[in-house]
Amino acid sequence: MKVEKYRVPSKGKISLKDFDPNETALFDGSKKDGVEALVEINADIEKLQEQLYAEGKHKLLVVLQATDTGGKDGTIRAVFEHVNPQGVKVASFKVPSSVELAHDYLWRIHQQVPAKGEIVIFNRSHYEDVLAVRVHGLAPEKVWSKRYEHIKDFERMLTDEGTTILKFFLHIDENEQAERLLARVEDRTKQWKFSPGDLEERKLWKEYQAAFEDMVNKTSMDWAPWYVVPSNKKWYRNLVIAQIVRDTLKGFEMTYPTPVENLEQYRTLLKGMIASE
Amino acid sequence: MKVEKYRVPSKGKISLKDFDPNETALFDGSKKDGVEALVEINADIEKLQEQLYAEGKHKLLVVLQATDTGGKDGTIRAVFEHVNPQGVKVASFKVPSSVELAHDYLWRIHQQVPAKGEIVIFNRSHYEDVLAVRVHGLAPEKVWSKRYEHIKDFERMLTDEGTTILKFFLHIDENEQAERLLARVEDRTKQWKFSPGDLEERKLWKEYQAAFEDMVNKTSMDWAPWYVVPSNKKWYRNLVIAQIVRDTLKGFEMTYPTPVENLEQYRTLLKGMIASE
Repeated sequence: MKVEKYRVPSKGKISLKDFDPNETALFDGSKKDGVEALVEINADIEKLQEQLYAEGKHKLLVVLQATDTGGKDGTIRAVFEHVNPQGVKVASFKVPSSVELAHDYLWRIHQQVPAKGEIVIFNRSHYEDVLAVRVHGLAPEKVWSKRYEHIKDFERMLTDEGTTILKFFLHIDENEQAERLLARVEDRTKQWKFSPGDLEERKLWKEYQAAFEDMVNKTSMDWAPWYVVPSNKKWYRNLVIAQIVRDTLKGFEMTYPTPVENLEQYRTLLKGMIASE
Repeated sequence: MKVEKYRVPSKGKISLKDFDPNETALFDGSKKDGVEALVEINADIEKLQEQLYAEGKHKLLVVLQATDTGGKDGTIRAVFEHVNPQGVKVASFKVPSSVELAHDYLWRIHQQVPAKGEIVIFNRSHYEDVLAVRVHGLAPEKVWSKRYEHIKDFERMLTDEGTTILKFFLHIDENEQAERLLARVEDRTKQWKFSPGDLEERKLWKEYQAAFEDMVNKTSMDWAPWYVVPSNKKWYRNLVIAQIVRDTLKGFEMTYPTPVENLEQYRTLLKGMIASE
């Protein structure tokens, strides 16, 4: 898969309209084949994560942004569910608390960045501060417009200090959102998730798309790229993201830490202990 | 499975010697059958955890304690690996940092307790402060001996405020530990985990067993019971713990949150949106 196709270049501008949320162009096969391919990639990620944890050297930050129903939760489940929960953390950023609001917007974010050997997934992120905040006018333009630079500086610092950052915008269209909201309303186990507020947010679709477009254009850097992932088809979305995560982990070319010296001596010692008991 | 067998009563005293780490008495079947049974329980836990998260009412704290190689990491992987990483957190308590040491021993623990809708697994815990601290004399007896009462008070408060606490002592014997250390030394991908310090700790086996025995006797309460889980056989250990976790979650008798009123009206509205696009 030539996933570079979905990567937003650090120079120039893309238009979200040129990205088809329905496409499955990079995978040559059916949905069933795609689901099977994911199983294999999942197994790779599972193994690579164990190595990441063992080596304790790299830090991986995965940022997920999308409109409501865009599939952030589903992506986390599909891509990371089989990974050892010990090495993977999910940080969900909801409406900020009063303490969080009393600080700068990066304060609560910084507390959750990955440590060595960890994968952290941001379910929403600091980007809400140039998305919801902008669309709802929660801060004036002269405040939020400066944030793109802050964010770039912040992510530059994180990467200089050893963090690898992957950012995924899950791209769905308006019709797909209506279908997903309807599915919620029709499924007894999901009805509780539906709020009339979802329909109010939906009226701001164009404003959100403009904010997403600015976000990816202004903050896709070589050291922290954005990917616009076609996400109408969930299986394809999972496949694209899982592959990028897998390939990124592979690229670390990890090795296990060096064992202590004289391992053979301890081997003999331990064998003696077992025999003698 | 009558897991009550492994539950330490809140009154009276048990002796660890009466618990056989090798036994598989509560499961009528082979290891293969046990592994298959676990798959089913895992699927139950996965569904129940989704409900826990949806309902956002209960908080579940799972405490794991054991000697080195006792199987804490393996238990976490086997019992919780298939659960949505969004609702499950693992808190690993290692050697305290200087900031942590500058506070009381419950300070770092309290920060990690579960919120509503969450499962948190403690990989080691506040109990290290009556285990390693006691065995190595890191604090005098007059200090650590008061901690059993603190811990009971602390856990009482947590449960009064809505947390359910399950505590598992993974019980292996000395011979099994030698075999597991040997397996580490012989597996290229695990050699890095082996430290000569493990053999030093092993010399304190009796002291640790005495500390474990005091721990379960002094702090197994009706509201926060200890289970002594036979753990020489990993598949059996996983099965016992998974079942207790599953049954505890089931006991919450959870329901999905009530959906908004007039759901039918939104259904029609959404259908119109899909048709019109």
